[in-house]
Amino acid sequence: MIRVGISGYGNLGRGVEAALTLCPDMKLTAVFTRRNPQSLSIATPGVPVVAETEVAGYADQIDVMILCGGSATDLPVQGPAYAKLFNTIDSFDTHARIPEYFSAMDHALKESGHFGIISVGWDPGLFSLNRMMAGAILPDGHDYTFWGRGVSQGHSDAIRRISGVLDAKQYTVPIESAVDAVRSGQNPDLSVREKHLRECWVVAEEGADLAEIERQIVTMPNYFDEYDIIVHFISLEELRRDHSGMPHGGFVIRSGKTAQGESCTVEYSLKLGSNPQFTASVLVAYARAAARLAAAGETGAHSVFDIAPALLSPKTPEELRRTML
Amino acid sequence: MIRVGISGYGNLGRGVEAALTLCPDMKLTAVFTRRNPQSLSIATPGVPVVAETEVAGYADQIDVMILCGGSATDLPVQGPAYAKLFNTIDSFDTHARIPEYFSAMDHALKESGHFGIISVGWDPGLFSLNRMMAGAILPDGHDYTFWGRGVSQGHSDAIRRISGVLDAKQYTVPIESAVDAVRSGQNPDLSVREKHLRECWVVAEEGADLAEIERQIVTMPNYFDEYDIIVHFISLEELRRDHSGMPHGGFVIRSGKTAQGESCTVEYSLKLGSNPQFTASVLVAYARAAARLAAAGETGAHSVFDIAPALLSPKTPEELRRTML
Repeated sequence: MIRVGISGYGNLGRGVEAALTLCPDMKLTAVFTRRNPQSLSIATPGVPVVAETEVAGYADQIDVMILCGGSATDLPVQGPAYAKLFNTIDSFDTHARIPEYFSAMDHALKESGHFGIISVGWDPGLFSLNRMMAGAILPDGHDYTFWGRGVSQGHSDAIRRISGVLDAKQYTVPIESAVDAVRSGQNPDLSVREKHLRECWVVAEEGADLAEIERQIVTMPNYFDEYDIIVHFISLEELRRDHSGMPHGGFVIRSGKTAQGESCTVEYSLKLGSNPQFTASVLVAYARAAARLAAAGETGAHSVFDIAPALLSPKTPEELRRTML
Repeated sequence: MIRVGISGYGNLGRGVEAALTLCPDMKLTAVFTRRNPQSLSIATPGVPVVAETEVAGYADQIDVMILCGGSATDLPVQGPAYAKLFNTIDSFDTHARIPEYFSAMDHALKESGHFGIISVGWDPGLFSLNRMMAGAILPDGHDYTFWGRGVSQGHSDAIRRISGVLDAKQYTVPIESAVDAVRSGQNPDLSVREKHLRECWVVAEEGADLAEIERQIVTMPNYFDEYDIIVHFISLEELRRDHSGMPHGGFVIRSGKTAQGESCTVEYSLKLGSNPQFTASVLVAYARAAARLAAAGETGAHSVFDIAPALLSPKTPEELRRTML
């Protein structure tokens, strides 16, 4: 039985807790929180909620700690701290800072003799794996990644910060004609604007200047100014009724040629009813791999690239070969 | 530099030879054949063509041998024989006999201290990997595999054996409405007939009884009787002009639910201008992994499930994390 700890009980932490119920070989040992543990009621009966300050006392009771904090401020601090005590899994997703985070985690994990896998999820994660493998198999080709249709938390937050906005949800939408051109092997050069558009559902305060809010959205640097934008103003009731989910997904497409000149297209796509719940499911499968590799004496930081796929499955190698190969 | 041998110089062997030209870290050392070596002219200048009976003399000159024989009669004999002398890669694809073949290869490879990967390609191979990983991530779900649109060599051969048939090509065609039902998360129960149809392009001898040929095709047990069949009679010129390629592909779809009940669909799809050329490209990427694992002292038989994806790529782990994660 693989004993799992969860650090952080937001959407992702709750998703991990639920995903563990589908894994008969794994069990939740404790949930760690920075909040007052008494204030937190979790879904699993009989599992303790523990203040993060007490985590060291659990070093011998947990085989893998799944870190469910955010990448901006939580994981850069939390990751290396937990790595001193536990084997770890996290979903660090600030692509540009991965080398730096890897190095901090690798140092901490090796020093303490633990094993960790960073940046687990779907992007980074399964999408990275598919980009990498398709590129190794078809060296002569082009990669395309499209995201959506799905909710971007960062872009939704950016809209919410505009004065006069009560609430908002932003969907990243892949542009179908671009996806079709890529799928058909045309290898198009696509600008940022040609690949995705951004659709915004905005609840404004009563009497707010809607034209000014829309102007501020479409001209917002980094977040919106390079995209075509659709803005809808709706009521708070409509937002809650129609846009409370966190769907996401996307496509990774490699369009290439064999050395003898035949076109080949490799596509991996995800359509996710819930982004955090699916990410949690990926984290749990990789936690199984981490526990096995740690038990085999491996240490240091790794990514999905380094993990033999069989280790994700509860099935034995014989069963996998007989039923899945 | 990874030194590669090719055993068997049909479509697959020629594809491997070509794929190696896109890999600056690998080079072709020799091609081995059961034919008279003088009768064979290969594409790579300066590389020897050697009679299979002389293969033992190359044991120290080849890091990985890529076995390009067929699964029905070649590999069950060839595989274990080569495994006594070389690290091996093959595309053994008789799904039902994989456990038996694995066991023979594992025994031979371990006895000689070599490393091998069996059943490499896209199905078995990349499709297996996607079935297995999606199942480990979404334990509550259903798997669907569709093949095509593509040429089935076995079914084409079966038609050619009918009296009065000069030549034929058979395409396996996934039924779009079934694929759409699966993609939309309906988890349909699909019969064999509901998933694929078989389209046949047949060249008949002059004066042959076309109705009788068609009857023999559609009633042929195992090959055709469980499917809806479309038969077209065409001229030899038309067959050569329009059906000389070996395109193939397909989809692996896992349609599941997270533990909290949100639907998720994971799809992997291939659209291949040439089945043997793409298979060859997969073999070469896994040959790189085999050479690395053999150099690290690993032995015995493995499948794609056991290979960490990073080993397929010529890039360093640092480069992969920086550019692909």
